[in-house]
Order: sequence, then structure tokens, then C-alpha cells
Amino acid sequence: MVVEYDGTGYCGFQFQPGLPTIQGELEKAIGKLTGERRRVFGASRTDTGVHAWGQVASFNTGSVLDTETIVQAMNHYLPEDISVKEAHKVPLSFNVRRKATSREYEYRILNSRTRSPLRNWRLYHVWRSLDFKAMSAACGLLAGKHDFASFVTDYEKGETVRTVLEATLHKGDDTLVFRILADSFLPHQVRNTVGTLVQIGLGKLAPGHISRLIQSRKPGMAGPTAPAHGLYLNRINYPQPFGAT
Amino acid sequence: MVVEYDGTGYCGFQFQPGLPTIQGELEKAIGKLTGERRRVFGASRTDTGVHAWGQVASFNTGSVLDTETIVQAMNHYLPEDISVKEAHKVPLSFNVRRKATSREYEYRILNSRTRSPLRNWRLYHVWRSLDFKAMSAACGLLAGKHDFASFVTDYEKGETVRTVLEATLHKGDDTLVFRILADSFLPHQVRNTVGTLVQIGLGKLAPGHISRLIQSRKPGMAGPTAPAHGLYLNRINYPQPFGAT
Repeated sequence: MVVEYDGTGYCGFQFQPGLPTIQGELEKAIGKLTGERRRVFGASRTDTGVHAWGQVASFNTGSVLDTETIVQAMNHYLPEDISVKEAHKVPLSFNVRRKATSREYEYRILNSRTRSPLRNWRLYHVWRSLDFKAMSAACGLLAGKHDFASFVTDYEKGETVRTVLEATLHKGDDTLVFRILADSFLPHQVRNTVGTLVQIGLGKLAPGHISRLIQSRKPGMAGPTAPAHGLYLNRINYPQPFGAT
Repeated sequence: MVVEYDGTGYCGFQFQPGLPTIQGELEKAIGKLTGERRRVFGASRTDTGVHAWGQVASFNTGSVLDTETIVQAMNHYLPEDISVKEAHKVPLSFNVRRKATSREYEYRILNSRTRSPLRNWRLYHVWRSLDFKAMSAACGLLAGKHDFASFVTDYEKGETVRTVLEATLHKGDDTLVFRILADSFLPHQVRNTVGTLVQIGLGKLAPGHISRLIQSRKPGMAGPTAPAHGLYLNRINYPQPFGAT
């Protein structure tokens, strides 16, 4: 399933007993729909308050419902702030996480003296003027296969090398939109990257600081962690389109 | 003042005792800021649930605060879902309503099989496929000086002739955005126009029906009234920019 959600009211994707989570809501809806108690697997564990345009989640089922019925019925049972956009049959061997070849996140900044009520909880509001050119230059240093250890908040066990395939900054009327595509991401990597970019945009750090962070490989060096409500999981890419298998 | 608001939680712009209104909130904030009890005048009376990117509202004050301070202080006192974007000094004779030369509204439709949680309460969701070409053709019939009596919901006393300066439909990935500029609007005119356009988009009416509605001049003929939460007051135009006087 491709899933869109407004993360505002949820403690992230991953199930936590007694707390509202995306995984929990999906599992509840599947239970109502199929009568089965199934585990849902997400391609990317979004944090509390983070949004998704295109999370991908899978589950096994004995149900013979066609995918179109699953989409409509899931949306009937799910709360208003979660929606299944597509459903596809995949082989039982399909692993939603391991099969993914890349993930795209987007971070939206409102750069304006005043807040924007129509976009509250959808963008991170920075009222001081940001230097777009400096931030763009910094973005240019992110692409490539690097050790991003400095971009996690705390020590992370395991591999911290990731390949950033693309990192761009787009300027709108009063917004800056940062888009980043990578094979996968470390926890808080995008938000700590944005936090650093904002420091650069405010003139507190030089664009080249990104390279120094990459070289230093010390958890907690990047940041501060930008707020969750500006972050969107845009899409998860797979070797071939769903339904092609 | 140029004012942006999320209309979701309000019973429209106009003050109503005991109910949450934009005018009421602006007057409360002015009271806290200046200690004065002042009436606020709005350029356009938006209905319950209607949003604004650029409502214009004026008040008289004995306060000597500069406009930048007024913007910041108003935003401090106002609730999160209302924001003053600009403030300008105008002559005492300025009438925010009568001085306006034109108003622009926008109506956003989500045309997709599934809802979009990240845009709930921001677009009107039509899940059946809409015929963009037919709707565009219908839009082309709106421009001009016409009697729009058929486009009000109930009988409206007074003049029902209005001049539509521009009416366009834009197609996005999964959205249709209708924009209309007129000297002024009759109550429910935009929402009843959109309701008719949707009927045309669904193939229930021909594009030429718009012309028949204009000719028939019977209140209640257009519509159904499209929901408030897709409607945005974009901007109010004046003969010269604020601050130029």
C-alpha cells in the first residue's frame, strides 16, 4: 500500500502500545476489513509529527479482496488523517524495507516575518531571512557516498555510510523546499541536515561546514534537529513499479 | 491590515455574539494591544469555514505604534489560525470595502479517488473524474458584466449585476484550481459557480448551461453550493498600493 498521512496527531509510524501510531491504525483497519490480526511493515519509520505523501506499507493476508476494494475499504476504516492511495499484490517474499532502492524526503521551510495560518503544522517557520545561495551551495556538498555519522543525534550502532543521490533546495514565494534522495537514511539525518542548512542560511556557519561535518564523523555534531512538522516522506522507490511483478 | 486565516474553526468573518469569528478575534487583539474598544471593518465577509490568504481589515486607533509593531503585536495576541501579514496607515476617510476595486477568490478541488489527509479542510474532494475541458469552456462564459441573480442561493435585495474580470481553471497533478476576479461578489456566488462547474465536469450539465443561468436570473438556479473549505479569499485590490497615499 502507498499511504499518505498527516503526522500531527501521531507518535510516528512504529507501533507503540497505548499510543496513536500510523502502524497501529493500519493494523486496526486491516483487522476490521479482513478479520485478521496482521503485522504491517513500513518502508521508513517516520518520527512523531512527520508527514508522508508516499509511505509504503505491506501486510500478508488470506483475504481474496481485490486491490481496489482494499483501497476503498481501508479508507473507510482509517481515520481522516491517514489514507491508502494505492494497493498492489506483491510476492510473499517481498520485503518492503529491503527491496526499496531509495527514499525521497522533503523538508518545507516558511521563511517569512509572519506565520501562515493556512500552513501551520505543514512548514517550519523561520522568521529571520535565510540566505538561499549559501544554503544551495551547502546542499551541493551532500551528494555522494559519505559517512554521515555526524548527522545522527546520538551514537548509532551499525553502518553510518549512506549514498545521497540528490539534494536540492527550491525557492518559492515565501518558502524553501529541501529535497533529498538517498539509498536510505540514518535516524534524524534529514532534520539534522536541515538544522545545519538553516544555521548556514542565517550566516552562523559557512556552506563548507557540511564537508567538515561529513569528515568529523561525530554523532550530535550536525543540527540542531529541525522540527518534525516540516518533514515529509515523499516516496519510496523500488527496482520496478508495483504490479509489474 | 492584510490578514491570513484558516477559516475552519470560525463562523465566518462577521462578528456574532458568543461565536468565534475573525472580526471578533481581531477586535479582541486590538483591545489587548491598544486598550481601545474598536470596530474592525473587513473588505469581504467570508462565510463559515472559508479561508483567506489576503483579507483586508481596517480600524481607527489613537495608538501611535508603528505598523511593524502592530503586525508583531497583533500576531502575539491573535490565535495561531489568524495572522496579520501587513499593516499600513491609511487616511481616516479610507473605506476598506468601498475603496476596493476588485476581489480575487480561489476555489481548490481535489479530484482523486482517495482523500488527501495532508490537505483535508483545504480542498473540496470530488472522487469522480472531472472533465477539465468542459469546465474550462464553462469558465470562459463567466467573464463580463452580467446579472448574476441565478448565482445567489436566496433572493438578494439590491443590485445583482457584477463584472467578472477573469475566471480561469488550472489543472494540477490531482487538483483543479478555479480563480475568479470581479469588482465584487454576491453572497455564495463563487461557491454556487463552482457547484455548477462540478456538475458540468461530471457531465450532468453542458458548459453552455452557464450562459442559460446568467440569462434566467432566478436565485437558487446555480449550484449546489460547493463546500466552504475549498474557498479562499486571495486578495483585495485597491486603486493604489497601501502606503502610497
